[in-house]
Amino acid sequence: MQIPAVFQPPFRLLMGPGPSDVAPSVLKAMSGPLLGHLDPVFVGMMEEIKIMLRQVFQTQNEMTFPVSGTGSAGMEFCFVNLIEPGDEVVIGVNGVFGTRMVDVAERCGARVVKVEAPWGQIIDPAKVAEALKQCRPKLVAIVHAETSTGALTPVEEISRLAHDAGAMLLLDTVTSLGGCPVKIDDWKVDAVYSGTQKCLSCPPGLSPVSFSARAMEVARQRKKKVQSWYLDVNMLASYWGQERVYHHTAPITMNYALHEALRLVLLEGLEARWRRHRDNHTALRNALEVMGLGLASQEGHQLWQLNAVTVPAGIDEAAVRRRLLTEFNIEIGAGLGPLKGKIWRVGLMGETSSRANVRKFLTAFCQILNEGGYKVATDAALAKL
Amino acid sequence: MQIPAVFQPPFRLLMGPGPSDVAPSVLKAMSGPLLGHLDPVFVGMMEEIKIMLRQVFQTQNEMTFPVSGTGSAGMEFCFVNLIEPGDEVVIGVNGVFGTRMVDVAERCGARVVKVEAPWGQIIDPAKVAEALKQCRPKLVAIVHAETSTGALTPVEEISRLAHDAGAMLLLDTVTSLGGCPVKIDDWKVDAVYSGTQKCLSCPPGLSPVSFSARAMEVARQRKKKVQSWYLDVNMLASYWGQERVYHHTAPITMNYALHEALRLVLLEGLEARWRRHRDNHTALRNALEVMGLGLASQEGHQLWQLNAVTVPAGIDEAAVRRRLLTEFNIEIGAGLGPLKGKIWRVGLMGETSSRANVRKFLTAFCQILNEGGYKVATDAALAKL
Repeated sequence: MQIPAVFQPPFRLLMGPGPSDVAPSVLKAMSGPLLGHLDPVFVGMMEEIKIMLRQVFQTQNEMTFPVSGTGSAGMEFCFVNLIEPGDEVVIGVNGVFGTRMVDVAERCGARVVKVEAPWGQIIDPAKVAEALKQCRPKLVAIVHAETSTGALTPVEEISRLAHDAGAMLLLDTVTSLGGCPVKIDDWKVDAVYSGTQKCLSCPPGLSPVSFSARAMEVARQRKKKVQSWYLDVNMLASYWGQERVYHHTAPITMNYALHEALRLVLLEGLEARWRRHRDNHTALRNALEVMGLGLASQEGHQLWQLNAVTVPAGIDEAAVRRRLLTEFNIEIGAGLGPLKGKIWRVGLMGETSSRANVRKFLTAFCQILNEGGYKVATDAALAKL
Repeated sequence: MQIPAVFQPPFRLLMGPGPSDVAPSVLKAMSGPLLGHLDPVFVGMMEEIKIMLRQVFQTQNEMTFPVSGTGSAGMEFCFVNLIEPGDEVVIGVNGVFGTRMVDVAERCGARVVKVEAPWGQIIDPAKVAEALKQCRPKLVAIVHAETSTGALTPVEEISRLAHDAGAMLLLDTVTSLGGCPVKIDDWKVDAVYSGTQKCLSCPPGLSPVSFSARAMEVARQRKKKVQSWYLDVNMLASYWGQERVYHHTAPITMNYALHEALRLVLLEGLEARWRRHRDNHTALRNALEVMGLGLASQEGHQLWQLNAVTVPAGIDEAAVRRRLLTEFNIEIGAGLGPLKGKIWRVGLMGETSSRANVRKFLTAFCQILNEGGYKVATDAALAKL
């Protein structure tokens, strides 16, 4: 057998729906000497990760830690621990990740009531209120920032409705955390999951999660064992808590990376980081306007970190993405589901969100569009930055 | 809030039950530029990982890839895909990981028949045969190398019995893969999982798995959806197969590390690597004999990569481990379950398995034992290397 050569990845500017660019110090952290998962030095670092995650999530929840899997494992973590067969769940569905929540919840035996909105629109609290009249859900689940459409659903009103109906609130913050306000305690979120590879700018591989005291109580009082051993919060609480009982071997180097990425988030400061995401989004949107290009997501609820740019008629969207990648080393994302072929997804997440990157992208993008027959005024667009 | 300082892990010699030491080129691989999970360059590397994993597992199975979680996620992957509620499963239980299999299988709704052996002993094929007379299992599952006890259960006879009874064979090779012969096709194993952080000497975070055509057919023909969305092989087959349908965001940098670690395994050659593990184990065992210390695992079935060293009377086993770690930067493992306090677990896995490391460990170990009142002839022991 031929043994493959050493893998040498090219440098890409990651402007898709995640992963985003990673700071050099985060990449470097992963090359540090390996420790055992029960080493007191590693355990001390786990404590620092928990403390920093609480800060980033804006929560006091004791049970705040990174699940040893990517964002979807975090989603599954929330449902398997909180849902038992027959439980009712209300889920907001306005994109890929709401759709995925329904699938995950049903695999836990949940009876799901969907609150739907067209892709690109937010979940309407009035429709949630209506759904809550028809069932007695244990949980209301929504996606804060829909990565597939670029829409940001406000949380507070839906949270109030859920709690008034006696339900817990579960929030997907995979794309929002670190890029725009996420306030778990203020918003009374009971269960939340996120990913590392979006606005935290850490490579994928961990899913930060947090459970309120109420969610932990629900998990503890279950009638039936959690269907996933790997994601059972009751056992994970012993490893990540004071007892340090061996559960599974934590991904050591991924935790090194997360530790450094969280440090960078807090050194910048959450509010400054949110402003940076907002300002670069605004600059991009203004430039796109000059080019006659709009965003497909609902006006007033557009994500700062993920821009769903509508593809103009007559342009081959896949060819544009391919040229950006192969000729300019810039990755952007395609549309999914009903938005397939209709939008490009341009991410400005974490490290990627800078004016220099917006300029680099627009310069290449304008050139490709012009050569493809869609004429844009490059200089006028760039002047908006 | 005080922001923690940059984390700077100390250098440790990892001689516990895993993780093991990692080659510098593997650590360095993780610091390479980050790619997206659908980038054609990353996808090309995924193909190389699959090809190399097949070689290491000694299998032609198409469905051979790393699950995006640690070894226990690989265990769960096998059970959730192959088991439906009510299915019968025979599981060999002679340590922590057989015990864990029972828990995982029961969470899938399996009716489990246990074939037990005292910790440190192997699973007796005669007892498996007996169990197979009492039930009609879909699956027989055993742990090849029990990391908690240091015993290696031979596979071929049990495989024959399982197949004669119409069952599939599931094998845990977390600690065996890369350190001693593992021959998935020759042994007719239908489903296998492993970990990266043992004899493959890659940081923890991925679980290499392989399903035979029969196992894939069973997963495809299920009546009920797989209870885990994250681990559903039918969807993962689309991402890791030719279609490249987005499922979850793969842990990019962990795959970089695995690619490099597999390269190193194949560059050394499997047989040479197995011999190295055998020879360093033999050297350690001979030296321990001079010191009057034995192994707690069954004679003739002792693992080369994990040595269960019996703690002599009057010695505080935890104090020895603590001194090794804090004064000599050497990590070894404690006993678990019924072996708690009775053994030390000394790993010689992957990069860790060298004569120099055996010498380094024994030198420190002898000093600590002598100072602790258990007198050993250090020079005579070291002369055995």
